[in-house]
Amino acid sequence: MTFQDKLRAAAEHNRSLLCVGLDPDPALLPAPVRGQDNPTLHFLKHIIDATADLVCAYKPNFAFFGALGGRAWPTLKATLEHIPPSIPVLLDAKVGDIGNTAQQYARMFFEELGADALTVNPYMGLDAVAPFLAYPDKGTFLLCLTSNKGAEDFEQQQLPDGPLYLRVARKAVEWNTAGNCGLVVGATQPGAFAQLRQHAPDLPFLVPGVGAQGGDLEAVVRHGIDRRGGGLLINASRAVLYAAKGPDFAQAARTAAAQLRQRIQACLPA
Amino acid sequence: MTFQDKLRAAAEHNRSLLCVGLDPDPALLPAPVRGQDNPTLHFLKHIIDATADLVCAYKPNFAFFGALGGRAWPTLKATLEHIPPSIPVLLDAKVGDIGNTAQQYARMFFEELGADALTVNPYMGLDAVAPFLAYPDKGTFLLCLTSNKGAEDFEQQQLPDGPLYLRVARKAVEWNTAGNCGLVVGATQPGAFAQLRQHAPDLPFLVPGVGAQGGDLEAVVRHGIDRRGGGLLINASRAVLYAAKGPDFAQAARTAAAQLRQRIQACLPA
Repeated sequence: MTFQDKLRAAAEHNRSLLCVGLDPDPALLPAPVRGQDNPTLHFLKHIIDATADLVCAYKPNFAFFGALGGRAWPTLKATLEHIPPSIPVLLDAKVGDIGNTAQQYARMFFEELGADALTVNPYMGLDAVAPFLAYPDKGTFLLCLTSNKGAEDFEQQQLPDGPLYLRVARKAVEWNTAGNCGLVVGATQPGAFAQLRQHAPDLPFLVPGVGAQGGDLEAVVRHGIDRRGGGLLINASRAVLYAAKGPDFAQAARTAAAQLRQRIQACLPA
Repeated sequence: MTFQDKLRAAAEHNRSLLCVGLDPDPALLPAPVRGQDNPTLHFLKHIIDATADLVCAYKPNFAFFGALGGRAWPTLKATLEHIPPSIPVLLDAKVGDIGNTAQQYARMFFEELGADALTVNPYMGLDAVAPFLAYPDKGTFLLCLTSNKGAEDFEQQQLPDGPLYLRVARKAVEWNTAGNCGLVVGATQPGAFAQLRQHAPDLPFLVPGVGAQGGDLEAVVRHGIDRRGGGLLINASRAVLYAAKGPDFAQAARTAAAQLRQRIQACLPA
């Protein structure tokens, strides 16, 4: 089953375009999990159990696992194994390297870890993307227009035929021969959604920035939805993970996820 | 001691602008190390022992360690601990993320692992770079103009005031207030060295691509050298690491490193 098929099935089954980002920051873990042998893993298992019927995907953030040092790999692996096989896993590692190195990452993330999709930084061009696209069943999401202020520094700079981020989107469409390419488009740039959807009608968009960063959810859904009423993975991390810090943290995460799913559904065309 | 000072001291002491890249590919390890408990670590210790007086820096490639799965972190840590403290370590991870995530990487690589410098992908702009620049004693090398063919796709695209890579170099100079910024400039683009050195007279350049990728060493050194006769870390990985596959692999690596150091010295102005 390809990533795209798995994503569509999960989105339809759970009636959800919500993607929950798994960013386990040790400093923010709720008190009740801190005494556990592996607090991060314990925490994430509860979060997954509480939200798995409300999401279209999970997005573990590689850096937050990497910071666990020697426990990074086993914790990430056990977290992915705990996610129900029907829910796709989009690993957020923003890798950007070429040739042999990119192949190492592809093998590590797609084969050893079993992730269904990956975020990739396109700066170095096709050589940095092709080793991932070579896996037709896996999703490769290129950073396009991100939700941070620094997007002005390079991404939004004007080339002769439009801003740099639009060139990334055009290239993604060109490189999408196996139907396995996606884009990362920040919710804080709602004005760009109609433009990007026009140029990339069939690519899924991973959309960070609706939570803490304050993006405009309604504009994102209205302009970002694809022709089949999908194609969006609207990500929330902290707003779900850290909805409460006491013993009710998992229930609070479920409530936050359910509310966000509902807010997204309410923006969909009738 | 800052990264820049450490780099200059090592380059002067060893009379070398050669940086050896540590890319331990399990498929390429010489036969004699394969029976060891940790073949990668065993191999790299021998390579380091054989070359530490010939280099200005080592550049471990994070992806090659990451591919070791559960042994990734301990192997990388033990490798760095084996490098003499007088030789700076530039970790090649090409990270590119923002805020909290970038801070996690900075803590992981600079604090826990003790790397002296790091490669960073600038696509997301200042937010993706600032958390690393916040460490004044550590080096932050921005991908600028890389040695791969895909550099055409985005890096070499023309903005109103020059190609994208030149804007990255200008921004690096602007962001270099603590004197801790560097650039990655591929040896396969010798024509750009004079231009980049003119715009960034004081930034160190990490230069991949002289070995297998066939860059023009003489042009790189002539146009890339800074006013003090330094500012270049000319990287070779495979040409040194895998110079021989038999029991003489470490001696062969030493010979290859010595020859390359000599070829670089021969290009320096008298």
